[in-house]
Amino acid sequence: MMQGQSVSQVEIQKFRGTVLCPAEDVLAVEEPLEIRLGFTQDGARLHRSVSITMRTPGDDLDLAAGFLFTESIICSRDQIASIRHCGRPVGETKLQNVVRVDLSPEVAIDFSRIERHFYTSSSCGVCGKSSLEALDLAGNPSPLVDDFRVRPETIHRLPAALREAQAVFDQTGGLHACALFDAQANLLSLKEDVGRHNALDKLIGAELRQGRVPLDEKVLLLSGRASFELLQKALVARIPFVAAVGAPSSLAADLARRYNITLLGFVREGRFNVYTAPERITV
Amino acid sequence: MMQGQSVSQVEIQKFRGTVLCPAEDVLAVEEPLEIRLGFTQDGARLHRSVSITMRTPGDDLDLAAGFLFTESIICSRDQIASIRHCGRPVGETKLQNVVRVDLSPEVAIDFSRIERHFYTSSSCGVCGKSSLEALDLAGNPSPLVDDFRVRPETIHRLPAALREAQAVFDQTGGLHACALFDAQANLLSLKEDVGRHNALDKLIGAELRQGRVPLDEKVLLLSGRASFELLQKALVARIPFVAAVGAPSSLAADLARRYNITLLGFVREGRFNVYTAPERITV
Repeated sequence: MMQGQSVSQVEIQKFRGTVLCPAEDVLAVEEPLEIRLGFTQDGARLHRSVSITMRTPGDDLDLAAGFLFTESIICSRDQIASIRHCGRPVGETKLQNVVRVDLSPEVAIDFSRIERHFYTSSSCGVCGKSSLEALDLAGNPSPLVDDFRVRPETIHRLPAALREAQAVFDQTGGLHACALFDAQANLLSLKEDVGRHNALDKLIGAELRQGRVPLDEKVLLLSGRASFELLQKALVARIPFVAAVGAPSSLAADLARRYNITLLGFVREGRFNVYTAPERITV
Repeated sequence: MMQGQSVSQVEIQKFRGTVLCPAEDVLAVEEPLEIRLGFTQDGARLHRSVSITMRTPGDDLDLAAGFLFTESIICSRDQIASIRHCGRPVGETKLQNVVRVDLSPEVAIDFSRIERHFYTSSSCGVCGKSSLEALDLAGNPSPLVDDFRVRPETIHRLPAALREAQAVFDQTGGLHACALFDAQANLLSLKEDVGRHNALDKLIGAELRQGRVPLDEKVLLLSGRASFELLQKALVARIPFVAAVGAPSSLAADLARRYNITLLGFVREGRFNVYTAPERITV
């Protein structure tokens, strides 16, 4: 996952107390990725840019697919006819910073959704209704109802499993990670990025492209905090169980409660807090 | 800073090992803030929404002013005629989630800059030139040249000073912080938010509104990682010295090198790394 193009070696100075020594360090690469969408309108093939995000190179196709899916611009992998890098390679590492996604001819897309990022369109909510009601969650999703259960002992094992896997990939300390596990704490997928929303889009996009969405009976572990945006993406992928090493925000907990997602925070050192849907934890 | 509306009390379950106990917890509030701009065009007063960001309530006016300034929509506090909350209060806490900023009649604003967030407009850079060259930094800023110097002993004191100040305000563990210090490690300002770009906009906006920008001879401490976006905001406010408790990204270091900002990473436990402009550190 951390390939050559994902890290950048630099000459630095290290201070230990007041002692200075020259050293080398490895930084997580942050570069723009443009996602261009090719689509059919009134019989004509058109294309346009739908997003530019600052991301860590690697898994770009997964990121593009995941972004389109979690932002509800597409609703299945069948709607993607092709997905590939395009544009000229940039810089010494020959990075390609544009991904072109061509949709199947029969797909109709809602450009109002693309133009106004979903929660930026909820101006009524900002000044009137409660924020969560007004947040225009695409496709009117239903709450997650299932018999999925996880044991507390399993949850306690997740942070170490993530750290172990990250130690292999992240030499920079600058990456957010998200990981997918089954109910026995087996690691199914790990993705990293300077942007945590990108890490999750990469993870969900890879699952989508392999036909494994909806992600029921899976546990998502976030290396940092749980924001509204991350919970919204998990909901679209139908992940019933989200565990964060850091704290959740109030709106993340509100969304989890409303859609019956089990949300854990501060999962570390043999402890965790359960914010919503505790029934999925077997005591 | 952490007022009643910035935190939300919830009932949770705590697991310690396999032992469960009901408890109360405090979450950082995450709510949308809409920034509306009032301006004059062809003699008529118009207004429109320019941004909706997910923020922690508190210091909303500073956030709005800081956003407009660091995104180069305005270039001085004199351009702001008035700034105030508007719209109906929301929910139990009577939150107001809209800030209206009225610009002075003579101010001409560039709406292409607002419509396409500055680095989302750099499509040429994505496929051609190096990213940093192509990133359309507004106003063609000059590198920072000064005699500002900081001692390593001073830098080692910053994380503890931040933690001490945060302990008073952040009961949630869910907030990013940024703090402004002078060269003697005196804390001048501390702002917190669920979004780190919001925390920095609040800090810079508060200084702007009090007429203290440019922020030369100041040290900015970031509680987490240093991304390109944060360095770009620091550059607009002319902060010469940025210290991060976490890792910088490659593009953050590129920007710091190009504009001669001193960038430190991993500032903790008596150590730090110097990525750029080490001459501002007195050995």
